[in-house]
Amino acid sequence: MKDIVKDLFIKNDKKIVLLVMDGVGGLPREKGGKTELETANTPNFDALASEGECGLHLPIGFGITPGSAPGHLALFGYQPTDYPIGRGIVAALGIGFPIQSGDVAIRMNFATRDGEGRITDRRAGRIPTEKCAELCQLLSTISIPGVELFIQPVKDYRAVVVFRGDGLSDHVEDTDPQATGVKPYDPKATSPKGEKTAHIAGQFIGQALELLEDRPPTNAVLMRGFAVLPHIPSMRERFGLDPVALAVYPDYKGVSRLVGMDVVEDLQDLDAQAAALRENWDHYTYFFVHHKYTDSKGEDGDFEAKVAEIEKVDRFVPEILKLKPDVLLITGDHSTPAVMRAHSAHPVPFLLHAENLRPDVTPEFGERACSRGVWGVIPGAMLMRLAMAEAEKLAKFGA
Amino acid sequence: MKDIVKDLFIKNDKKIVLLVMDGVGGLPREKGGKTELETANTPNFDALASEGECGLHLPIGFGITPGSAPGHLALFGYQPTDYPIGRGIVAALGIGFPIQSGDVAIRMNFATRDGEGRITDRRAGRIPTEKCAELCQLLSTISIPGVELFIQPVKDYRAVVVFRGDGLSDHVEDTDPQATGVKPYDPKATSPKGEKTAHIAGQFIGQALELLEDRPPTNAVLMRGFAVLPHIPSMRERFGLDPVALAVYPDYKGVSRLVGMDVVEDLQDLDAQAAALRENWDHYTYFFVHHKYTDSKGEDGDFEAKVAEIEKVDRFVPEILKLKPDVLLITGDHSTPAVMRAHSAHPVPFLLHAENLRPDVTPEFGERACSRGVWGVIPGAMLMRLAMAEAEKLAKFGA
Repeated sequence: MKDIVKDLFIKNDKKIVLLVMDGVGGLPREKGGKTELETANTPNFDALASEGECGLHLPIGFGITPGSAPGHLALFGYQPTDYPIGRGIVAALGIGFPIQSGDVAIRMNFATRDGEGRITDRRAGRIPTEKCAELCQLLSTISIPGVELFIQPVKDYRAVVVFRGDGLSDHVEDTDPQATGVKPYDPKATSPKGEKTAHIAGQFIGQALELLEDRPPTNAVLMRGFAVLPHIPSMRERFGLDPVALAVYPDYKGVSRLVGMDVVEDLQDLDAQAAALRENWDHYTYFFVHHKYTDSKGEDGDFEAKVAEIEKVDRFVPEILKLKPDVLLITGDHSTPAVMRAHSAHPVPFLLHAENLRPDVTPEFGERACSRGVWGVIPGAMLMRLAMAEAEKLAKFGA
Repeated sequence: MKDIVKDLFIKNDKKIVLLVMDGVGGLPREKGGKTELETANTPNFDALASEGECGLHLPIGFGITPGSAPGHLALFGYQPTDYPIGRGIVAALGIGFPIQSGDVAIRMNFATRDGEGRITDRRAGRIPTEKCAELCQLLSTISIPGVELFIQPVKDYRAVVVFRGDGLSDHVEDTDPQATGVKPYDPKATSPKGEKTAHIAGQFIGQALELLEDRPPTNAVLMRGFAVLPHIPSMRERFGLDPVALAVYPDYKGVSRLVGMDVVEDLQDLDAQAAALRENWDHYTYFFVHHKYTDSKGEDGDFEAKVAEIEKVDRFVPEILKLKPDVLLITGDHSTPAVMRAHSAHPVPFLLHAENLRPDVTPEFGERACSRGVWGVIPGAMLMRLAMAEAEKLAKFGA
């Protein structure tokens, strides 16, 4: 089905807005209760839902819990199983690092270890980004023969490391044990192809630990998501859209760049995103607006705070409507139920608003209402098709 | 999508129970009436449905009436169109016959013919299994050059024949005319590859008719389902599960063995199945409990008796719940509406019960209630993914 849209797309000036509440799908706090989205007071979403078409989508497939990057690829119209992308690449793209074909990118956390090398805090007390930048500069003095190194801060305790050289590979296991009280793993090749890279990573970690020795709580590093650049056709090539991303968090800018979106920098909150939307309105045909904190609060297990974040985004909706988008799609990249404190495989509610729609029986935007919507449960990557169709960006198939 | 689960599965101790009411899906007896499942008094199913997620599944695909073996393959997580398996193989595996690669297995019925060779009873008066065993021993005296023969009783009038030798094939048509008043067909090759096997089958039938000549009502044999062993990756390989089958009927043990399940022998009824479930609880992570008679009564056209069988299984549910399974999936392998007296292509109601579920608007377990469930109509093979996700046996896809 991949190429059918490529042959059918039509360029026009109609505007599509994709508003993503990260991890918006939820579960009831108690049996028989309401989910976060059902609990939230969302007059704007509900008005759109009652006029629009609703349903649920599966970003990857039945039973599969999406990571953030593949969840977004689905929303951008790409079946994620066709384009596996590693965390390191997402992080590198997120900070705008000019990654090249052949580079290996790795997510790195600064962490805390005890006297015996056991990890006591996987996030080094959540140090500020400035501290992280300082430590990255320190680690940039590391030298390993035959490979060029780049160490860049991302946010808080998170950094990205890029190895550039010949014969590198992403066939290396994470060193992050994903637990405290244990030592980090050694970087281990998962195939002979990965041995050179694993060896370099081992040298890097060794030198880093020496440099960080006397600097608790940042006296350890954890590496994960060894990754190389995948080839993904851009949204311009594949869908004929002129896309722009309005996201606060680096990772979402990263996945946007991966599909060839322009990215507006230095957006700190929804107000800034609203202003950027207005400023860029005439220059693009596809606008991706991302709100992270619905997911963060879900991962924190904070049901009420997630409800509040949803309400915050609901209040943002008039800013979009003022611009009169031809198509407005509101959804999430996956579910993050507060009761599970994690991403989950549950299908994600969506709401499609445009001119020529079949009204369904969904007087509100919520998981149960959407399950009674006209679309049922559909693959996430098909949402792009629905949006393009409503924006009259897809030609008739056949005569 | 086939390999994605293989890369993501997580082994843990959580328990999944699949409770199958064979042929459970039905139709109303009269226009506007209720189906068998809707008619049945099922307080346990209904309680689970009101807490759980419901939907309908298509074991093979839209409009396709499933046979028993492919219907079950779907429930075990295998898209049946990827793994065609013949009836002969299912029957041979069902009785624990040590079938080998290259063998051809054929289902054989003892039947009754009149003086002109026309079939008057396709089931030979439903002779008891002991009589069948005796006749199989008699037929074991048959000798055909270049091929080894195995003739084994299955149940009642049903037996299985295995040909072992070089150059055999399953490209042979059934001899069973599926009707009375007509002569059986000759075994006919459907391609040049099948000619040797068809010839052997012809010789076998000729000798069998001589041996059975004076033994009405068992003076004929009908062969169907010429089959060779397909390669199917085991549930351990493919899903990381430790599976066990608790089934009364041989065919269902057969299809279970085909996917590498352990099989508990000598279970005669639901009480024995309940006891076996308890005894094996600590040793497995996936339990397949099969009830045949919902299908049998449907095929008999006995609406009331099918309702009674459904109620019997409902009363069995507390035996499962006592063990506190992490995931309980209740469904059928296909529909067998009593009004049709046959398997049908209608989607099959299912009910998924676990900890982290979206409640839907299904206060009871029935076809119409399930059609309003959260899942809509989904491929049967996807039920395994939903069950594994709820049992936290699938890792996140991507970072």
